[in-house]
Amino acid sequence: MALIVQKYGGTSVGDAERIQRVARRIADSLATGQRVIVVVSAIGGETNRLEALGLQMAARPEAREMDVLLAAGEQVSSALLAMALTTLGHRARSYLAHQIPMLTNAQHQRARIEKIETASLMECLADGVTPVVAGFQGISAAGRITTLGRGGSDTTAVAVAAAVAADECQICTDVDGVYTADPRIVRNARRMAQVTFEEMLELASLGSKVLHPRSVEFAGKYKVPLRVLSTFEAGEGTLITMENESMEEPIVSGVTYARNEAKITLSGVSDVPGVAAKIVGPVAGAEIEVDMIVQNTAADGLTDFTFTVGRKDYEAALELLKPVRTKLGARALSGDNKIAKVSVVGVGMRSHAGVAARLFNCLATENINIQMISTSEIKISVVVDERYLELAVRTLHSAFGLGQTAAGS
Amino acid sequence: MALIVQKYGGTSVGDAERIQRVARRIADSLATGQRVIVVVSAIGGETNRLEALGLQMAARPEAREMDVLLAAGEQVSSALLAMALTTLGHRARSYLAHQIPMLTNAQHQRARIEKIETASLMECLADGVTPVVAGFQGISAAGRITTLGRGGSDTTAVAVAAAVAADECQICTDVDGVYTADPRIVRNARRMAQVTFEEMLELASLGSKVLHPRSVEFAGKYKVPLRVLSTFEAGEGTLITMENESMEEPIVSGVTYARNEAKITLSGVSDVPGVAAKIVGPVAGAEIEVDMIVQNTAADGLTDFTFTVGRKDYEAALELLKPVRTKLGARALSGDNKIAKVSVVGVGMRSHAGVAARLFNCLATENINIQMISTSEIKISVVVDERYLELAVRTLHSAFGLGQTAAGS
Repeated sequence: MALIVQKYGGTSVGDAERIQRVARRIADSLATGQRVIVVVSAIGGETNRLEALGLQMAARPEAREMDVLLAAGEQVSSALLAMALTTLGHRARSYLAHQIPMLTNAQHQRARIEKIETASLMECLADGVTPVVAGFQGISAAGRITTLGRGGSDTTAVAVAAAVAADECQICTDVDGVYTADPRIVRNARRMAQVTFEEMLELASLGSKVLHPRSVEFAGKYKVPLRVLSTFEAGEGTLITMENESMEEPIVSGVTYARNEAKITLSGVSDVPGVAAKIVGPVAGAEIEVDMIVQNTAADGLTDFTFTVGRKDYEAALELLKPVRTKLGARALSGDNKIAKVSVVGVGMRSHAGVAARLFNCLATENINIQMISTSEIKISVVVDERYLELAVRTLHSAFGLGQTAAGS
Repeated sequence: MALIVQKYGGTSVGDAERIQRVARRIADSLATGQRVIVVVSAIGGETNRLEALGLQMAARPEAREMDVLLAAGEQVSSALLAMALTTLGHRARSYLAHQIPMLTNAQHQRARIEKIETASLMECLADGVTPVVAGFQGISAAGRITTLGRGGSDTTAVAVAAAVAADECQICTDVDGVYTADPRIVRNARRMAQVTFEEMLELASLGSKVLHPRSVEFAGKYKVPLRVLSTFEAGEGTLITMENESMEEPIVSGVTYARNEAKITLSGVSDVPGVAAKIVGPVAGAEIEVDMIVQNTAADGLTDFTFTVGRKDYEAALELLKPVRTKLGARALSGDNKIAKVSVVGVGMRSHAGVAARLFNCLATENINIQMISTSEIKISVVVDERYLELAVRTLHSAFGLGQTAAGS
């Protein structure tokens, strides 16, 4: 009898009617003979509402109390979903982190799961009762409530699946799978039947906001078969697998992008050890997330250092770098907050040097200037003027033959 | 250094601004050198909102899951109040039932407190940190969340005060004390500086909705000095004490009432054992609360049986009694849903037979017909036509000399 973990996000349990639909969907799975452990997020918008309440109490509310506050959201949804299942004639019970227990470290607001006791959950299943686990929350060794950070319910689901050795972890969401590109930009974007963990990781962190990157990392590490699928529409979704064994493996799996980016350049800094830390340090210290970092080979002992941040943090980061510029005696500090990042991702590109060349050629044909380039083993990202974002995504999607009707590359 | 338990109800923490005012009030107590354990209810209206959500999931949601759902309300308010205190420079932390732990039996939705572990709370105080306890909730031996029933936060406060041997348990609310009568009806109603536990118990259960009766019972049992006072206005409030030792003890302490009552009479039933149970049983079985029950001495082996219920339950109770009437061969089933109950309460009336006489005389003078009479050691209640409610309360308040300017009786 297959054991499945099903995770439902905030949109899926957005109101009473949706919670009931989710209950019926779980009941359908139970009817096929599967055993199901459910993991649920807070009702859509609830976490934001609670956070806003906290921010009325203090400009920077204490992290430990924020966790107590926010964890109430999943407490409510797990109880409601358990009730809805019971109404359908299925025995169910909510599980809060302290009841499992789901032990985490004491890093409040971004705790890491350390251990999940599975005995209670397994007994519950053995009794024919469906556990409905409150996602996102944990309990520290000191007995304080922790939360895993935004998107944490995905991580809860994968961690539970790993702990109970589930046959599959299903992330049920408002999209029906992972696409080769954003369908709003590329009309013939294609749902991928499967994608590797590494590709998914790059896709997730690059803006395909389907899965929280940490959960993908976790699933890869513990080899939990992960599937992204629609809560309310039928379909197989996208299976996230170990390395793709298909013979017809495409070189590039998808094209992704990030809007609302900004870049900051410190030019003419000495190319000596410790400089990069002096530049990025103050930005990271202000808890501004730095994405791409590019530093080219030095000429005449001087180099240029560029990094990207979210557009909302642009002004703050620029301010932080003014004293750094003086201290380092840099020639200039400049920036641009009208940029976007476009990336092609594919586990197949590891062994194909031609991908970068095709990408650059393709953008050149459309007269799109490349401002920055950064590469990883399975990804090439370029920064372009934001006005070219859609054009770049469409062009690359087509050039790498990702569309539904196009032939493979 | 005095140790005080302060309980704040839903109205007191009705919004962000009020939570901050409550925090300042607690800070004022701390500034006088008192140690304070705070107990807090859910934000006003939140319990009803959560309950309504639960009722959307099932006509009769499972009690265990309702408790998980409702307990989220106090989780939120305790975290918010701890944050607000921290903002004022006072270290504070929220305490949920499982963190104390506050152990109850497994009677979900109306659990009874069995044991409060005080070690963690006392360590917290010793560290100079103010505990903010989530009221209303408990944890069963099985680790499930329980709730104490409506008004349960008062009980939490009194139980905590008893467990830590607090010097006083302060119930901070939206009235500034317990009055000799409802000030909306009796203009010169007087705040009582003190009242006995027994009187308070009668006053609370009769409609002076200041304190939950269970909490008063609890306080009396464990001899916890209890004070009712205003959250937002200065004043000493009303101290609820052991038997009043004042030499000038008034016979009657207050006049109280209950609106929206209904009475049902089954007349001409056989005066044999078991009849009362056959009448009240079905009503109680439908979870309709029965208040007064009056049965007079039988004549010719037949008697009349009358009881009162809340007006909202009148029709349902009447329906339930139709088959009972047939079964018992009663002469008639009748009722009236336009009645009200007026009571005089006072520990002093134990030894004064004249109170009843004065009460009956007083109502007769005003031409108010008495439909039912029921007495306890410290209370006399009468049922009258609801149109005479205000007149009866005012007349009795004056007759027993309870007004601010009147001389004592």
